[in-house]
Amino acid sequence: MPNVSSPSLVEPLGALRLESGATLEVEAAYEVYGRLSPAGDNAVLLCHALTGSARAAGDQGWWDPLIGPGAAFDTNRYAVICSNILGSCYGTTGPRSVDPATGRSHAGRFPAVTVGDMVTVQHALLERLGVRSLACVAGGSLGGLQVLEWAARYPTMARSIMPVATNLAHAAWTIAFNECARQAIRNDPAFFEGDYIHRGAIPHRGLALARMVAMISYRSARSFGERFGRQVTPPGEEDAGRFEVESYLHYQGDKLVERFDANAYLRITEAMDAYDVGGGRNGAQAALAPFRGPALVMGIDSDILYPVWQQQEIVEVLKANGNAVEYREIHSEHGHDAFLMEWSQLDAAIRAFTANLP
Amino acid sequence: MPNVSSPSLVEPLGALRLESGATLEVEAAYEVYGRLSPAGDNAVLLCHALTGSARAAGDQGWWDPLIGPGAAFDTNRYAVICSNILGSCYGTTGPRSVDPATGRSHAGRFPAVTVGDMVTVQHALLERLGVRSLACVAGGSLGGLQVLEWAARYPTMARSIMPVATNLAHAAWTIAFNECARQAIRNDPAFFEGDYIHRGAIPHRGLALARMVAMISYRSARSFGERFGRQVTPPGEEDAGRFEVESYLHYQGDKLVERFDANAYLRITEAMDAYDVGGGRNGAQAALAPFRGPALVMGIDSDILYPVWQQQEIVEVLKANGNAVEYREIHSEHGHDAFLMEWSQLDAAIRAFTANLP
Repeated sequence: MPNVSSPSLVEPLGALRLESGATLEVEAAYEVYGRLSPAGDNAVLLCHALTGSARAAGDQGWWDPLIGPGAAFDTNRYAVICSNILGSCYGTTGPRSVDPATGRSHAGRFPAVTVGDMVTVQHALLERLGVRSLACVAGGSLGGLQVLEWAARYPTMARSIMPVATNLAHAAWTIAFNECARQAIRNDPAFFEGDYIHRGAIPHRGLALARMVAMISYRSARSFGERFGRQVTPPGEEDAGRFEVESYLHYQGDKLVERFDANAYLRITEAMDAYDVGGGRNGAQAALAPFRGPALVMGIDSDILYPVWQQQEIVEVLKANGNAVEYREIHSEHGHDAFLMEWSQLDAAIRAFTANLP
Repeated sequence: MPNVSSPSLVEPLGALRLESGATLEVEAAYEVYGRLSPAGDNAVLLCHALTGSARAAGDQGWWDPLIGPGAAFDTNRYAVICSNILGSCYGTTGPRSVDPATGRSHAGRFPAVTVGDMVTVQHALLERLGVRSLACVAGGSLGGLQVLEWAARYPTMARSIMPVATNLAHAAWTIAFNECARQAIRNDPAFFEGDYIHRGAIPHRGLALARMVAMISYRSARSFGERFGRQVTPPGEEDAGRFEVESYLHYQGDKLVERFDANAYLRITEAMDAYDVGGGRNGAQAALAPFRGPALVMGIDSDILYPVWQQQEIVEVLKANGNAVEYREIHSEHGHDAFLMEWSQLDAAIRAFTANLP
């Protein structure tokens, strides 16, 4: 395993059986920061969010300020690993990948995946890499769902967990936002029921609108108010006469289209909504009971998508199970996205936690 | 003027000059509950919200429990009047109306309208009906914007005001929700840039999605959670396997398509976003200074679209102007829509206010 792998490496993992029963040829893209110990027991797994990638550190890395020599995730101490999730479009098998059975992209025929499947792929990858034990599994949003699934599925391999701005299962309001985003994609005539790649089309407007809707949920009324207020784009500029918040949403929408796949957006949000750590396991407390390690749970006071009472539910379940749990609330006006923005608070909380890890 | 006019009556108002400079032949649909005094001074004007109509009382009346003999808006005492707003599709001139110049629906060529234009139309209608003075102008959401515009524009004709779940001007986050809804409509290929009526098309999917997005903003995470949780529609039923909250959103979307016009949705939300009571008037305090009457301002503690701090801004402006202002906060888990649901709290607050009106 390399000391630093950037850009992402890709590891073929062979055929994996999904929770749906389908079988899928899978490869996983990943990055590593730091060096794995000979015993394979100093790895930290970082789990990314909906449109994230294996690029956790380095240029445009989603948690870059927290990773490095001497950083909160100290690469002098840990081999920090992040892999692109199953169903995504950044190197790990997803709807854009070529189906060996047909020689063409899976596209709309890509099977339903689950958060459990994502974790299965991560586990298979880590085995290939020689990782025997994880000092910590950490991540925010969808990444946090994966963290909880790790604790439920591999309760001894994950020695500690750090679920951030996430919940035990999506609430109805969060599902509602995702369904509006999905419907925006489905409504686009260029979507062709998922077959757009083979039609030479891109559901640009649909995916952009999906992102616009999501952006509302990722920020807060206050952050939009302070940043944009009722400012109107001045004459002479593109979007002249439009409210700046409108231009911002359209810009964010268009930007996502350049870097993300509509089928991946559907599959991943469906997996998020369907996930329930306690589902089929007699509830969250029973599901997490085999996990005995410490946990750092973090919430963001302005998060409307994963409100802090949902992180409190995680804390209560872990406390009831006797885990050593610490809860840290990030104070921010930025809403859900604060888990990718409030570096000093994240840094302090994570340092305090990792300093005490065995 | 009739004692009770239901279904709506329609009054032609001739050519009106809009704030944009355009001229428009306008007629207004309205309903009246109660009898206007010979002096024409016992009228109450109710202003409806985005997809509302002149049907305030009676079957499906949007404030029906508050209107009637002995009710909070006591029709033994007041002539309660509600008219459909300009740009809508319930009888008052809007995009679906026939343009006398072409003999066809205005459709996408319907001019931009403002909240000020809506109030101009209401004022012209009331003059025709012989109303000389209004005991109160009341309404929620967009209705509340009209209420504030009444106070600014006709500060002596409106003897008291009751703005509910509204604000002095839309905040960026509220504009963001509206822009996503508008984009959903524009994205629909059946929209034909507003010309759908003449193409024999209906932007069904776009307008339905607009409503789905709006429904998120009208309710709250808690109300969705308590009503739907993670319930899945059972096998055998339509939408089987889907989360009930998803089915609910689609149902609400489809229902709006049956009763509302996409161009009207665009024109009215644009008017809402553009409205600023203090715009061009040296700010809200100066704009409302000529209005000397009492005010009942109401907010809803779970409203995320017009959060209560925005009603506090209205209260502060009126207090600074020396008005007698009462603020009542409705406690509800239903979010913004509580102004159409929490009858007992609305009833008590409105009764207390109207009892003291001169």
